[in-house]
Order: sequence, then structure tokens, then C-alpha cells
Amino acid sequence: MAIRTKKKILISNDDGIHSEGIKALAKAMKSLGEVYVVAPDRERSASSHSLTLYHPLRVEEVAKNWYAVDGTPTDCVNLAINGILKMRPDLVIAGINKGPNMGDDITYSGTVSVAMEGTLLGVPSIAMSLTAKSNFNFNPAADFARRLAIFVLKNGLPKDTLLNVNVPNIESEEIKGYMVTKQGKRVYGDAVVEKTDPRGRKYYWIGGDDLGFVHSKDSDFLAISKGYISLTPIHLDLTNHASLKEIRKWSL
Amino acid sequence: MAIRTKKKILISNDDGIHSEGIKALAKAMKSLGEVYVVAPDRERSASSHSLTLYHPLRVEEVAKNWYAVDGTPTDCVNLAINGILKMRPDLVIAGINKGPNMGDDITYSGTVSVAMEGTLLGVPSIAMSLTAKSNFNFNPAADFARRLAIFVLKNGLPKDTLLNVNVPNIESEEIKGYMVTKQGKRVYGDAVVEKTDPRGRKYYWIGGDDLGFVHSKDSDFLAISKGYISLTPIHLDLTNHASLKEIRKWSL
Repeated sequence: MAIRTKKKILISNDDGIHSEGIKALAKAMKSLGEVYVVAPDRERSASSHSLTLYHPLRVEEVAKNWYAVDGTPTDCVNLAINGILKMRPDLVIAGINKGPNMGDDITYSGTVSVAMEGTLLGVPSIAMSLTAKSNFNFNPAADFARRLAIFVLKNGLPKDTLLNVNVPNIESEEIKGYMVTKQGKRVYGDAVVEKTDPRGRKYYWIGGDDLGFVHSKDSDFLAISKGYISLTPIHLDLTNHASLKEIRKWSL
Repeated sequence: MAIRTKKKILISNDDGIHSEGIKALAKAMKSLGEVYVVAPDRERSASSHSLTLYHPLRVEEVAKNWYAVDGTPTDCVNLAINGILKMRPDLVIAGINKGPNMGDDITYSGTVSVAMEGTLLGVPSIAMSLTAKSNFNFNPAADFARRLAIFVLKNGLPKDTLLNVNVPNIESEEIKGYMVTKQGKRVYGDAVVEKTDPRGRKYYWIGGDDLGFVHSKDSDFLAISKGYISLTPIHLDLTNHASLKEIRKWSL
């Protein structure tokens, strides 16, 4: 089926506009439509779904259709749609993030928050992450992003639902395929480091002990550990519907 | 039933340690156990569940068991449990926030993120918000927080679930009671304001058009509009389980 009008694709991330991951993603999207990149001017990891309300935001067009914003990933998507582009794109896609966004960690994730903001503003949205800490190979993730984008541009997504995709950092031919997964659970540790400065005052670093994950069936963590791409449908309704009945019985 | 050991209650917020709301909440919790306040040194609204990873965090003990942190609400809870107090409290409670945290807005909320971090660290957690923009009357919210805390300290909460509580800003005797609700849906508008600085450069403010909410049954918005306290059970599993079957049928 021929696509009559050119599709508009908005790309953002939390690693910043100069990240290799966003360049790989923009390249992969290029042949699918008109690509706009609106991304933070610097790294904004773990910024979560935060929004800048107390200072004005500056935008710089660093190349044609590439805009750097001194704000969070969420700011970028909001500003792109409501301020810079003044139109609703056909797809919002985030990444490719240098590092995984799985399990409970997605509540902190700037990458997932890009797709959350896209979804809130009514645009089908995808978050792409590469599950490695170094030696990033963006090719398999870029290829899968392209396949997925073609599908979503044609078929849309379930209502109020985004796709959170994590890709193993291995060669394309080693990837076993993809699995539709559930958000897994990380095992958390004591991740704070206490230090003393030269003037004897204490300060703290929040760390990130990697203690592994709960081996639950169909989880994002499990798919990655087995060499599959993980694709999790995420929605923005955080209500624990299953608990409503029980809680309605409480007498406070 | 007598409580044998003194319960430990950790309070935080996103309005900052000097907010009237946190003082009202600490006062309400006082008779229930040992109260610790670890909160941002200044306002951090819309900071969402963001975590500070790239600069060290300073902590100042501003009064006995009151600690000001130059970080986000999530930092405060993480640092309190893993760094400052070095113990797991029996309850984490956030607020009382000056303003509502309902519908999709909770994904941006610093107040709810306090309870999210508490939940992730295995502590029963509650978020308290007052649904007003000015002339705050904290009494009914403080009273309800106390009733709820007594119940939760005794009975705990469903697994991985926090309580998001919104209280109408009216006199105690006008409140009709409480309703167990679902997260509602806001109607969003174009909320970006474009301005030009004295040097002719454009800048942007992200606004917050209040266009109301979708009138869905049992929603948080509806409870408040009818004069009830809204109590929504929130969990951290964002998987859209209902869509898994459909998405597994896709051929990408």
C-alpha cells in the first residue's frame, strides 16, 4: 500500500542530541517520512517524566529539523508538538538509549518518558533502548526500530499504550527474534555511597547496585537474558484495579 | 492492640522542607511514632520520579530529625532509607501537596514519586495532596492522613501498591466521606507560551491549561468534584496486560 502523504516522525531521547544512539535512530527512520529531532542539549538520564515549569526553555536549531532544548526529555516532546513544530506527528520514537530500561527502572526513565508524553498528547509512541553499558552496537536496535515503526505507522497502537523496546547488545544474526513481554522486577540493594569533602562535610552519591532481577515468566529481563528483543506494552493507567475490591472493604 | 515498639514514619514532599503542608503532616503523624522528615531544600514540583546521579547530594539537619536535601523527592527517600537513617521505616508518607495529583498528572508528580520510591524499597507508602491552588486548609487532609496511617501501620498494603490520596479543599464537616477511585483522564490542551527576550531570541514556557477531565465512573476527578476524598491504589506495574494477547498476534 502506498503511503499518500509523507509521515512525520518526532525523535527525542535522554542521552542528549549529540548521542550516537539518536543519530542511528534518525538514520533508520529517514526513509519512512519527514524526521524531526527535538532533544535535550545534554545528557538527562534518570530525569523521569519531569517537566520544567519554573524557568523558560531555550531552543536552538543545530541543523535542519534538529533542535536542542535546555530541558528534560518530556519538555522536548511537549515543546516540539505544542511549540516548535506546532503539529501532531504520526509517530514519536525515543532513543536509542545507551542502557536498558526494564522492570521498575522504567519509572525513572527519561527514554520511556518521551514515549509517555507522546502517548499523553495522542501520538503512537515507542521507546528504544540498548541493554549494554559500553561497546554499543546500534545496528540491530535501529533495524528493529525501523520494522516496528513501519508497522505502527500503518496499524497504530492500542489506546493509551506505548511500546517499550529493549534490544540485546549483540550482532543482528545472533538475535533470536522478539518476545512480547511484561515489565519485570529488579532486585534492589543499598545503593548510597557516603563521602566526606575536604572541609569535613558529608555528602552522598546515589549509586545503582545491579543485583539482577526476579526470574518471572515473560518478563523483559528474561527475554534479554535469552537473546531476544523485548517488546513491552506500557500504559499510563497506574491504578491497581485488582486491589479495588479489597480496599473498598476497608473501614477507615 | 498495643503497639509494642515505636513505629518509624518517614515524611517527604516536593514542595520543599519549608512548606506548610509538610509541617501539617508531621504534626498529624507525631503521636503515631517516631517521625523523620527528609525533604528537598526547595520546591521540586513536576520533578516526577527523577533521581540525581551526576552530582553529589548535600544533606543539612535543620532541626532534630528534619533533614534538607539539595535533590529531588525520589533522592530524599532513597537517601533517607539507604544513607541518612540507615533503616527501613514502617511507613513513608508524602505531602501534604499544595495542589492535586490526579489522572495522568501523577506520572509527573513529585509527591506520588515519594510514595513510588518508598514502595520500591519495600515500605507501605501514601501520597497526600490537597486539590486547591490557594487558600489551603490542611486540616481535613491531615486528619485523614492520620486515620489512614493508623490503618496502614496496622494492616499494611497490597503488594507493590501505594495509596494516592487527594482531599478537597473544604472544611472537614463539608467533606462527604472518602471514595476508592481509579486514576482518571485529564483533557490536555496546547500549553506552550512563546515569548521573545530583549535580544530578540525566542524562548518558551510550558504552561498547564486546565481543560477539565473526562467524566469517567469512579475516577479521582469525579470524587473530588462531588466533595469526597479520593483514595486510588496505584501500582508500579505499567504493563498493559489486556493488550498482550493482541500484540502477540502481530507479525513484525
